[in-house]
Amino acid sequence: MLRLSRFSLHLPRAVAFMPGLPAFDEFPVKVWTRLLTVQAHRMQPDMAGYNFHLGGYGPLREALTSYLRSSRKVVCDPDQVFIVSSTRAGLDIICRLLCDPGSAVLMEDPGYNPAKNVMRAAGLNIVPVPLDADGLRIDLAERSDPTARLVYVTPSHQWPTGVSLSVRRRQQLLDWAERRSAWVVEDDYDSEFRFDGRPLPTLQGIDGGRHVIYLGTFSKVMFPSLRTAYVVVPRSLAPAFREAVPYAGQEPPMHIQAALAEFIHQGHFFSHIRRMRRLYKRRQALFTDAMIRHLGDGIPVDRPAGGMQLSLVLPGVCPATAVSLSAGAAGLYAKPFSISALTNAVPNALHLGFAAVPERLIDPSAKTLASIILATR
Amino acid sequence: MLRLSRFSLHLPRAVAFMPGLPAFDEFPVKVWTRLLTVQAHRMQPDMAGYNFHLGGYGPLREALTSYLRSSRKVVCDPDQVFIVSSTRAGLDIICRLLCDPGSAVLMEDPGYNPAKNVMRAAGLNIVPVPLDADGLRIDLAERSDPTARLVYVTPSHQWPTGVSLSVRRRQQLLDWAERRSAWVVEDDYDSEFRFDGRPLPTLQGIDGGRHVIYLGTFSKVMFPSLRTAYVVVPRSLAPAFREAVPYAGQEPPMHIQAALAEFIHQGHFFSHIRRMRRLYKRRQALFTDAMIRHLGDGIPVDRPAGGMQLSLVLPGVCPATAVSLSAGAAGLYAKPFSISALTNAVPNALHLGFAAVPERLIDPSAKTLASIILATR
Repeated sequence: MLRLSRFSLHLPRAVAFMPGLPAFDEFPVKVWTRLLTVQAHRMQPDMAGYNFHLGGYGPLREALTSYLRSSRKVVCDPDQVFIVSSTRAGLDIICRLLCDPGSAVLMEDPGYNPAKNVMRAAGLNIVPVPLDADGLRIDLAERSDPTARLVYVTPSHQWPTGVSLSVRRRQQLLDWAERRSAWVVEDDYDSEFRFDGRPLPTLQGIDGGRHVIYLGTFSKVMFPSLRTAYVVVPRSLAPAFREAVPYAGQEPPMHIQAALAEFIHQGHFFSHIRRMRRLYKRRQALFTDAMIRHLGDGIPVDRPAGGMQLSLVLPGVCPATAVSLSAGAAGLYAKPFSISALTNAVPNALHLGFAAVPERLIDPSAKTLASIILATR
Repeated sequence: MLRLSRFSLHLPRAVAFMPGLPAFDEFPVKVWTRLLTVQAHRMQPDMAGYNFHLGGYGPLREALTSYLRSSRKVVCDPDQVFIVSSTRAGLDIICRLLCDPGSAVLMEDPGYNPAKNVMRAAGLNIVPVPLDADGLRIDLAERSDPTARLVYVTPSHQWPTGVSLSVRRRQQLLDWAERRSAWVVEDDYDSEFRFDGRPLPTLQGIDGGRHVIYLGTFSKVMFPSLRTAYVVVPRSLAPAFREAVPYAGQEPPMHIQAALAEFIHQGHFFSHIRRMRRLYKRRQALFTDAMIRHLGDGIPVDRPAGGMQLSLVLPGVCPATAVSLSAGAAGLYAKPFSISALTNAVPNALHLGFAAVPERLIDPSAKTLASIILATR
């Protein structure tokens, strides 16, 4: 039975500063729409019918394989790549395929709330694992729950703290999976946007794809309402996934899959990522500069090495939930860490997205948010 | 845990005579693609972002409500309509929201195999219920399983037999639901295509939407790879559905939802249905005439009052599974009832779709199929 959350769902109209939103204003809508239209004209049975492309449209699985191999050092063949309608849908299939209801799953605390909802709905027992500056403390999890055979992590930019899982911790986590015969779900949601240097190696790549199930999404690199994501599974799980994806009714529409394959094949995907990496770096700089200017010296503003959002730790006298309420009233979205919390041991902080905010709105929105923060105490 | 089926998945390349496929060759692709393209250009955050339209795009829910009220006598308001990515996805949410794992669900035997897979994957215990010429024998179910609180039915054109649930049986089924406080899932997948007279009233309409959860799909009226369907739930279930649909990551892409709303609003939907009703009636007549001509007197060919497929009962000496294998080798798809069976008590029959077969291919394909049937004994 789906267990519903105690939290109500958030329906923000404000782009400033909702985490997880890409730059809608800079999306190459003409190129994309042209490709989409060409593919939507293909009304042959193999494009318009049922399940002709089991696991996803072949050329998209191939294009993704090349991309993931070269950009993320993911070790896979196209038949290990499955196209699904969202990260949540992929995670739902993973949980239901690999875990019995009531079994334990480890998760970062604080962590990605929609993933928590999916895993709870699949009947799993979520075991929170603390974080430090190097990411997930798998050593603590090892002691607190010896039965868990699944862990869900966001190693590139931990959601919401932004911490990158250190190389040493990555190895510890994979050692744990090896010892336990456990599965690691690596949600690599916005790893493309690393501003300086190359992105960190994926867990999947270090592991060679033995214990790691890799989740990726087009929501950040393209846009969320496209509703297309992918799962890369170990070779041993591919036959089960091949059967399970259509069971769940989770295949994205074929014209979208085919247009995405062309978008990647024709090079638009790479050039869009490159362009967004520069844009998000610029928007991050504008946002952090504005916040530093408007907040003054009392509240330090960190500038993470990548991602589409940052975390802002507030002084104890200024509760993040109170700031969030006032920001909402002022037409801004300021998400408190408490929404992503599994226990009460979360920092008093905000999770702020800057990637979607047009340059001209960054300073005035930051000014409003800073004044709310300074007035809340 | 997802329990996988014993059956391998079917990947037919043959349109003749796969059940459930619409006329790809007569779809108004230009009009549709024009609407799709217009909507795909809308890159504002409310169209391209996350969950701005909880439960589905508002104008589509409104357009569907008008359509369902007038064409199917469904009793609902737009906030009871939820847009999902497939009938399977909708059924998955229903099962997981309303049933504990291990609980019983009644289902027609033979019945719609993908629904069986979804319900088994949700951990439900499927209780087969026999059919007769009036449809589901709910009286037999009442005696054999007194615990069931959910039944899945295809009352308009039972899948695969084509039987319509009689008016008297509809009332019996609703009485059962009332007595048991049970839920009836009404999968009304191709009710639009009734060739003579008006479609039968829906269970949802007779019941006033108290115990019936209504499932509809755009797979038959539009085309399957569009991946868009809808669920109409009783008012009491609407809040839970509102929360559960995004949990499962089941929302169709926004440009598709918006284009569908326009397609209905501008009248294309109704005129396409009217045109396809005439076309499918003609293709059915051509197909049944051809089968009668090529089969001779020994094997009667029924002509159902509607739908996109028909069932052909074979003599005992001619096993449907053997015909199916030979047909596959000849490039045809002839689905034996056994694929839809829950028990062994299914007729020796084929389930044959004619709607997608272009006129010029009907006679030659029917001739090949008939010769295979006559040679199999």
